[in-house]
Amino acid sequence: MTPIRPVFIVSDHTGITAEIIGKSLLSQFPGEAFATESLPFVDSLDKAEDAANRIRDAWKVSNLKPLVFSTMTDAAARSVLEASGALVMDVYGHFLAMMIGELGRPAVPVKGQSHSASDAGAYHGRIDAVNFSLAADDGLATQKYEQADLILVGVSRSGKTPTSLYMAMQYGLKVANYPLTPENFEQPGLPDSLKPYMAKLRGLTLRPERLAEIRSERRPNSNYAALETCKRELDLAARMMRDAGVPVLDSSARSVEEIAALLRQSLLKGAR
Amino acid sequence: MTPIRPVFIVSDHTGITAEIIGKSLLSQFPGEAFATESLPFVDSLDKAEDAANRIRDAWKVSNLKPLVFSTMTDAAARSVLEASGALVMDVYGHFLAMMIGELGRPAVPVKGQSHSASDAGAYHGRIDAVNFSLAADDGLATQKYEQADLILVGVSRSGKTPTSLYMAMQYGLKVANYPLTPENFEQPGLPDSLKPYMAKLRGLTLRPERLAEIRSERRPNSNYAALETCKRELDLAARMMRDAGVPVLDSSARSVEEIAALLRQSLLKGAR
Repeated sequence: MTPIRPVFIVSDHTGITAEIIGKSLLSQFPGEAFATESLPFVDSLDKAEDAANRIRDAWKVSNLKPLVFSTMTDAAARSVLEASGALVMDVYGHFLAMMIGELGRPAVPVKGQSHSASDAGAYHGRIDAVNFSLAADDGLATQKYEQADLILVGVSRSGKTPTSLYMAMQYGLKVANYPLTPENFEQPGLPDSLKPYMAKLRGLTLRPERLAEIRSERRPNSNYAALETCKRELDLAARMMRDAGVPVLDSSARSVEEIAALLRQSLLKGAR
Repeated sequence: MTPIRPVFIVSDHTGITAEIIGKSLLSQFPGEAFATESLPFVDSLDKAEDAANRIRDAWKVSNLKPLVFSTMTDAAARSVLEASGALVMDVYGHFLAMMIGELGRPAVPVKGQSHSASDAGAYHGRIDAVNFSLAADDGLATQKYEQADLILVGVSRSGKTPTSLYMAMQYGLKVANYPLTPENFEQPGLPDSLKPYMAKLRGLTLRPERLAEIRSERRPNSNYAALETCKRELDLAARMMRDAGVPVLDSSARSVEEIAALLRQSLLKGAR
């Protein structure tokens, strides 16, 4: 059995950045076993000392040097963590020093800038975008399409809603989504509510087998979930998009984050 | 006028990790002006060469050495970026070397592990959580509360929905939310649908002025948005939570990420 190495995510704020970095790096060592503990809001020297003690304790128990991914804006608190002897990988400790060298001015250590509400404009923009995407989910509020940055089009359960919400949350984009139902295929061309917005339409598709699987979770043994139905709807949707010249993305083997990043890139390219 | 320094986010995958790190570090230099460009999916040496050329061009135009935040799993592609002469801050270049030293084994460079669908279990868990949170939004699907990891309770517009969705997306937690309406205050005690789930209830509150502001955006000059109404509802909600012993979080000056991280911490503490 592989021994389990302790991993700590330590931050003086939410720990979201440190968590993402840690996850990303740990995944490059698939043969190792890790036990991860998050210690967010470690925002005083006392709390840093507590964290360092927990790290030392875990080391004693496991007999393996712990890995620490951290975002500590305060240099003194970083030193407290480092004094634990663990392998401390702190984004500020390393990259901030590089930046200070290049920019020739000191950093202003403000905790958790990237995940706080302090940049009020950008922050409210993201919340507005989430509210927009909820309001314009599943073909609702087509009268608001003028305000949308992007309108996702696809058959039922093709991944439109999570993608819309993720893009709103991560990028502050107002993303509407429009489901293609069997009725939409009875008329030639795009549904009327979509026609004025060609530049911001993007299609989502996926493999029929995957769609059947997803639909079966919702309505097992239904006509809706039958492989034949899925194939037919996906074919008709693909033809509609191709005829109208709407770019289409296949979500089968992609995560929401990947689809979101690809869609955003395609919007930026379209705007150039 | 402060000269504008070019910043590049370069990744062989979505660039989400590099973007978060860059944002976090740049925010520590409030006096500087930056122009950020994202170059995701730089997944070949040719594309890395193109990226390096764009970086060189931006340097010529601005006359300031560009900053590059990157997540490039391939060492050769990293070298291509570094050959641009810009200040390249690559998470893999630095921290991965530290980890290899400690773990005593090579890394397996898999692109974008942290934002791909490759960890299928965890990934589907997150999508399931998003679907759950959508289904159990705004007091819907109370019959599913048994499955919830967390049930947020608060008056209308207290920030329950974005928080629920964020926690589902980020942490894979199934978060339901229940709005307290004036009718709920006519009966003593918690609403019946909440009573069996004390351990997973958390309240959200905010300053009445902020609530009135938010409600006014939705229904200007309404009784619903009046400061008096907001004060009364918040008071009644606060009393209900206090009497029932439900922990409450104030979202007034906090971002969704901060609230989410605090709530998660409070759930973990509750479980210990």
